[in-house]
Amino acid sequence: MTDIRDNIDRANQKVVERLCAGQPVWIGCKTAVDVIPGMTRHTILHAGPPIEWERMCQPMRNGILGAILYEGLASDVDEANSLASSGRLTLAPCHQYGAVGGMTGITSASMPVHIVRNEAFGNLAYCVPHEGASPTGFGWGTYDEGSIRHARWMQEELGPVLDAGLRGVGGINMRQLIGRAIQMGDEDHGRCGAATTLLTRELAPHLVRLDVSKDVLGRVFDFLLSADIFALHVIMAAARSMVEPAKKIPYSTVVTTMARNGVEFGIKISSLGDQWFTGPAQPIKTVFFSPEWTAADATPDIGDSSIVETVGLGGLIHAAAPAQEAAFGGTYAEALRKTEEAYAFCAGVHEAWTIPNLDFRGVPLGIDIRKVLKMGVTPILDTATAHKDGGKIGIGEARAPREAFEAALRAFANSHEAESIDA
Amino acid sequence: MTDIRDNIDRANQKVVERLCAGQPVWIGCKTAVDVIPGMTRHTILHAGPPIEWERMCQPMRNGILGAILYEGLASDVDEANSLASSGRLTLAPCHQYGAVGGMTGITSASMPVHIVRNEAFGNLAYCVPHEGASPTGFGWGTYDEGSIRHARWMQEELGPVLDAGLRGVGGINMRQLIGRAIQMGDEDHGRCGAATTLLTRELAPHLVRLDVSKDVLGRVFDFLLSADIFALHVIMAAARSMVEPAKKIPYSTVVTTMARNGVEFGIKISSLGDQWFTGPAQPIKTVFFSPEWTAADATPDIGDSSIVETVGLGGLIHAAAPAQEAAFGGTYAEALRKTEEAYAFCAGVHEAWTIPNLDFRGVPLGIDIRKVLKMGVTPILDTATAHKDGGKIGIGEARAPREAFEAALRAFANSHEAESIDA
Repeated sequence: MTDIRDNIDRANQKVVERLCAGQPVWIGCKTAVDVIPGMTRHTILHAGPPIEWERMCQPMRNGILGAILYEGLASDVDEANSLASSGRLTLAPCHQYGAVGGMTGITSASMPVHIVRNEAFGNLAYCVPHEGASPTGFGWGTYDEGSIRHARWMQEELGPVLDAGLRGVGGINMRQLIGRAIQMGDEDHGRCGAATTLLTRELAPHLVRLDVSKDVLGRVFDFLLSADIFALHVIMAAARSMVEPAKKIPYSTVVTTMARNGVEFGIKISSLGDQWFTGPAQPIKTVFFSPEWTAADATPDIGDSSIVETVGLGGLIHAAAPAQEAAFGGTYAEALRKTEEAYAFCAGVHEAWTIPNLDFRGVPLGIDIRKVLKMGVTPILDTATAHKDGGKIGIGEARAPREAFEAALRAFANSHEAESIDA
Repeated sequence: MTDIRDNIDRANQKVVERLCAGQPVWIGCKTAVDVIPGMTRHTILHAGPPIEWERMCQPMRNGILGAILYEGLASDVDEANSLASSGRLTLAPCHQYGAVGGMTGITSASMPVHIVRNEAFGNLAYCVPHEGASPTGFGWGTYDEGSIRHARWMQEELGPVLDAGLRGVGGINMRQLIGRAIQMGDEDHGRCGAATTLLTRELAPHLVRLDVSKDVLGRVFDFLLSADIFALHVIMAAARSMVEPAKKIPYSTVVTTMARNGVEFGIKISSLGDQWFTGPAQPIKTVFFSPEWTAADATPDIGDSSIVETVGLGGLIHAAAPAQEAAFGGTYAEALRKTEEAYAFCAGVHEAWTIPNLDFRGVPLGIDIRKVLKMGVTPILDTATAHKDGGKIGIGEARAPREAFEAALRAFANSHEAESIDA
């Protein structure tokens, strides 16, 4: 008779294999309503697990107000507020639409979205482009005129130019690019400078041949140069495309989604498909950009960007990015320790994403909720910090809340109650 | 009474300080004869210490023949051979003209040269652009039609476009860029992918705004994408500009130049100015690109690129670039060991160029010939391998010959024979 533990281990290996087999290719950047199945003119997507307007944190509400104004669905903020709370809009998690979004994650019909296709399985994923170096924008929870103007620029110039360039290059293989970026000191969440620089260099020969004015091209390259973080949202879409085929493997206790809405942190595990398990969004250990801000000003952990930790990047691999650790005063030894911890709670490694200074050991891949709970340490998520009223005010790291993992294990146990199970 | 050792130590610290204070800025890419003082239509510069035509290795001779044909100084190879051996050309080391050159180092009047200005001291240095991914070219010791055509393209398109772009950007600070590239896994000799990618991204906003056709721009960006090694020759010029102000500090035993011509390896030490001390060019431990080649096909160590080890990069910092070590089958532990060795024979560290996985310790800087001889280990030079008849056939690493260091220490001792000296 087979022990359930053998079934779980085999299932978890299968999940790791599917994550590892993913071949995410960045193939385009098109208007959300044209490409995201189910998206409408009255749909606004947000980060994290589902949450109603009334319970949302202020930055997320602000992002929605911004999107309503940007889409022309209301003519002023009061009208936008009424519409947002009226129930006449579809407010739903990005994840529910095959997408992800940074921080507030606000994604509306007219916005351009990166499209990543997982060539190994054929599925697609989406993410709005990162807003760049500015501390404001819908993602950061602001809706001032500058935020709306910048969103318009991304819609009118950035998206179409990137899309045409990607057509020229025939898509960029993000499995290779992320692998190379890790060799170059990116953990690909807080630090994406290598990935952004590589993307820029790879796109450049095609962008310069487009029938586009020098002014427009110049602005696109200015933007790419200004924002080391630009690649993050392409990497997030790549990760989103990798996790989909790893879902719904019976018996698997491996995490296939981690996402936060600023109020709750939610996870999914493979065997339980698209069911969310939540705990409270955690405070972020933040390095604030200015002494004027303290923890009291900060929104708790927010955004879908933790999809990158779900596929073995970010907070799981500080050993590959000692600068990420150093930004918070940590030593190289501490970076190594954190990464060893991640190896201990993961079910496997990614064969193509390797860490040079660990003799090219694959990154830890496939967070096993059983191991997390047994060890008593939850994954670290590298992140940024939004002001409670909106705007970027720092960078930081947070731990996932234990409650979400406990809820998932309880549900897993219930679904197998006839069999013997033990965390 | 001051011990001479104190004078030496103080002098060596001064040399380290001057190397460290260097602010190399890549300011242009212009025609050699227009910018290199003393250069004429009949001057051809080569790598390494001085050597007559008769004693040169074949790749260096081939490069000179190629340059003669490219410059139109002869109409065929026989005529070029006669001219080269006639004594009517000035054949001299790049180093003698404030320049450096990769592999054969061939530099002639019409070639474009990167210009780097050491802003802290005001001096200039030069290096021809790297020929890119091709295994042929004057640098590799070939003079076929393709090599000449490619040199012409660099003269007519690459050089002018880079020069205009650099004017637009106002120069690129190579101290910062090299520092960042080290954070990204470049040792900046065998591995320059991060530096090349960063340069491309930094130049792009200015290049796309130039009044240049899309075709020309496209070819320039294709070239920059094709050759991870492109930045090496800019880095070499930067290093060359850094060592000049560190020369001629009385009492200093720190190396200010290392260069090879394929027959001899030569060094200079600070206190003895521009005097060369040589030993035999060493065989290269090579990973050959094809099993058709063996050590018997290889030219000994050649090129001025070892100027980068002179300023603490390349073979001195494999700890920062484990992939460079792995390319030769070495482990991370071996990379660490080699870098510890370099710290032991260097007089100091570079404060702005740091190694993340050594807790941001500065790279070892200022090779002290006393320590090299006492330890019995000479610096490692990361390099490429040329076929004995020309053409790139592998990548490798070589050790500097002990003889050059011994000759330098003897000369140093002679110059201080009245004082007590002891290696």
